[in-house]
Amino acid sequence: MKGLTPRSKDQAKWYQEVVQRAELADYGPVRGTIIFRPYGYALWEMIQKKLDERIKELGVENVYFPLFIPYSFLKKEKEHVAGFSPELALVTYGGGKKLEEPLVVRPTSETIMYAAFARWVQSYRDLPLKINQWANVVRWEKRTLPFIRGLEFLWQEGHTVHQTKKEADELVKAALLMYKDFVQEELALYSIAGFKTESEKFAGAVYTTSIEILLKDGKALQAGTSHMLGQNFARSFQLQFLDEKGKLRYPWQTSWGLSTRIIGGLILALGDDKGLRLPPRIAPIQIVIVPIPKGRGKKEVIDWSRQVYQELKRMGFRVFLDESDHTPGYKFNHWEMKGVPLRLEIGQKEVKEKNLTLLRRDKNERLTGQLNYTFLSNLLVEIQDNLLEEHRRFTSDHIVKVDSYSAFEEEVKKGNLVQVFYQDNPEIEAKIKEETKATARCIPLDTFEEKGTDFYTRKGEGKVTLFARAY
Amino acid sequence: MKGLTPRSKDQAKWYQEVVQRAELADYGPVRGTIIFRPYGYALWEMIQKKLDERIKELGVENVYFPLFIPYSFLKKEKEHVAGFSPELALVTYGGGKKLEEPLVVRPTSETIMYAAFARWVQSYRDLPLKINQWANVVRWEKRTLPFIRGLEFLWQEGHTVHQTKKEADELVKAALLMYKDFVQEELALYSIAGFKTESEKFAGAVYTTSIEILLKDGKALQAGTSHMLGQNFARSFQLQFLDEKGKLRYPWQTSWGLSTRIIGGLILALGDDKGLRLPPRIAPIQIVIVPIPKGRGKKEVIDWSRQVYQELKRMGFRVFLDESDHTPGYKFNHWEMKGVPLRLEIGQKEVKEKNLTLLRRDKNERLTGQLNYTFLSNLLVEIQDNLLEEHRRFTSDHIVKVDSYSAFEEEVKKGNLVQVFYQDNPEIEAKIKEETKATARCIPLDTFEEKGTDFYTRKGEGKVTLFARAY
Repeated sequence: MKGLTPRSKDQAKWYQEVVQRAELADYGPVRGTIIFRPYGYALWEMIQKKLDERIKELGVENVYFPLFIPYSFLKKEKEHVAGFSPELALVTYGGGKKLEEPLVVRPTSETIMYAAFARWVQSYRDLPLKINQWANVVRWEKRTLPFIRGLEFLWQEGHTVHQTKKEADELVKAALLMYKDFVQEELALYSIAGFKTESEKFAGAVYTTSIEILLKDGKALQAGTSHMLGQNFARSFQLQFLDEKGKLRYPWQTSWGLSTRIIGGLILALGDDKGLRLPPRIAPIQIVIVPIPKGRGKKEVIDWSRQVYQELKRMGFRVFLDESDHTPGYKFNHWEMKGVPLRLEIGQKEVKEKNLTLLRRDKNERLTGQLNYTFLSNLLVEIQDNLLEEHRRFTSDHIVKVDSYSAFEEEVKKGNLVQVFYQDNPEIEAKIKEETKATARCIPLDTFEEKGTDFYTRKGEGKVTLFARAY
Repeated sequence: MKGLTPRSKDQAKWYQEVVQRAELADYGPVRGTIIFRPYGYALWEMIQKKLDERIKELGVENVYFPLFIPYSFLKKEKEHVAGFSPELALVTYGGGKKLEEPLVVRPTSETIMYAAFARWVQSYRDLPLKINQWANVVRWEKRTLPFIRGLEFLWQEGHTVHQTKKEADELVKAALLMYKDFVQEELALYSIAGFKTESEKFAGAVYTTSIEILLKDGKALQAGTSHMLGQNFARSFQLQFLDEKGKLRYPWQTSWGLSTRIIGGLILALGDDKGLRLPPRIAPIQIVIVPIPKGRGKKEVIDWSRQVYQELKRMGFRVFLDESDHTPGYKFNHWEMKGVPLRLEIGQKEVKEKNLTLLRRDKNERLTGQLNYTFLSNLLVEIQDNLLEEHRRFTSDHIVKVDSYSAFEEEVKKGNLVQVFYQDNPEIEAKIKEETKATARCIPLDTFEEKGTDFYTRKGEGKVTLFARAY
């Protein structure tokens, strides 16, 4: 098989090859759709499992709402329908008959959920209401890329309803920080949490927050969002509750989501010229064993490999023993492509000495070690930490402060996250995007109080804002 | 709140009330769709978790295929498209434009999967291929009932490809017996496994097998199906492999599924006049604690209830402490409606004596016991066993052998599973259905070899076949 196209040579080609060769996904027959193959779906299942635990820790319960939303529901919130209309898929025939009203295949579930909430919520006793759903959604995107942007994708969408603005604000932040912590601890991805500018906020929200990840090609990826919906949807859907004094009031709402897009983020932030590099905590396979049987010692090598496999399984590692017909060289490439964090090579020497010859995929370095739980689990922790540290350093190395537009243009071109003082203004942002292809990624939480002269107009006061080209 | 309509008085009304009052589901805005509320979805999550483990034990890996299937794909297998055409939902607009070819919202995924399999499978080394997906599917049903038959439902669909007919036949049976064992061990539902007659088989299959569950109203429910697809789809999709001798051959395929319909089965097979009765192994809440604080001992009752709660949680039980404002009587009804297997009532007496006053929901019987793991886990096992035994006895009590059509008509009316010798004949089956509303449920595996004179025509040889009215 031809070698993988180097990242440095052609990043787009490299990405598409990794997606296919690591057997993460294949293309579906409809433009912009993908098939999650077993390895890609196992990765999503790991992400689901770990994120679901965190969501439940927020006191949120899982539900499932219908896929089809009457078109009239979307129209109830004006900004929402304006934002989503260009991306809708419409069902117009059902059971051989033309439908009286077209049905929208959900692009997100605010409208269908809040119509039900209006029935479920009557008094303050019913609040807070906190639910989440794992589901497929459809958005008719023009430019698509596997995982990153698709016609259909998988995600979770959390939705909460509160008595007070304060409580809703707090939940928006709690969900955002949950995402930041989740991608950091589980996926070894450093991210920047902040507020979106007006032109980048969710259709129908009062404000949107997001975590942004810088990828190796210098583009940013919005990897999770958390929205304050205020009372906008409550008013549109007549969602009201009787407070403790018996007064009818509109509650405050939030919604927040993370999708299979994060898999694209993982590939583009951590991959190298040999393929994927997966963090041990979410790798479907943490350790792969490649037996190297030769000549007379063949049987011993296989027997010992199987013993080691059983031992590692017993210890609780996610382990795979590759007994296929292929050559060891082929297997090395194959599992490096798939990003398995640790490889054990077992030949006659290893059988005799009962020690381990390993390759750690994060550094592509060989080392030796002992077959015991502490050694291996420490090594996996080290790999996890190293990947995160590498990405954190990469990100901070690429945050560049500028205060002139000419310096801004230059740094954007280099693939940096460019930090400026910026006064939120949708018209100016559109101009900047046209001129540089960069968009405002976020106004980071950490520096939210800092202020300075707006870098573009040189007038007015701006907030610390990060710009970059983005997916 | 008004009492629950008794089952005996109006089963249909009873069912709809239980679905709503046990907070399992609510109606969606589009006819025939439902909202899975937290309690209903938690039940499905329990089912998913336990069935997924069993599916993986068959060596099957999870994947996810796109929701949208080009209409032309469905047309490739003639019987398949004929069977599903009346039930399709079609997307005709995307991104504001009329599509050149309508897209089918998947009613099942054979066609889209096998088009991909044709790329993935090249040689015998790629076989067997065994995959499964958990997904939503859409079928435009005319008569709908929550869980039992809906416009959209959730399910898993397994699909396998084999070199030989024998291997495929074995997998069809393995999947079927997995379902039978799963519903028996986890859901306390007794079922009958067998072959479907020609008129009841899956569109495009060579033969279909199913498990059938008898519900308390005397109707049968097809609760899981496993199909032998033979080489039908392989030929339509040009799915071929090079065998060990280098010859190009068509493989043999299977598909099999179990859906959220099983939740309807649980309600209708195990429910009683007080509501749901859930088997402990899949009950989202196994034990509910209801404190009964009165007068001066109030604080002690609450404190002890919380201590017991923590203790039970530590022991690994799924437990809920109901500290809401409602009266104990209200809480009793509420948790009985939700079918929680065990209730602990904690009042001053229980605090003083440090023992337990319990209600087991399967028998609606009160008992006392000790706060220790062995006592409680044995009791939960006893409840699980008792529910299964009850349903097994109910089923066998309602299997009635007849050899004349007049006796058949009578027994069908009584709500029995009527056992006859029957020679498979779609025309006769249509007549029987018209005259009695009964359909052939299955030709049981256990008695497959037994033969006798066909009960309807009194000519020709028939196989042991069960008929009943069905959902």
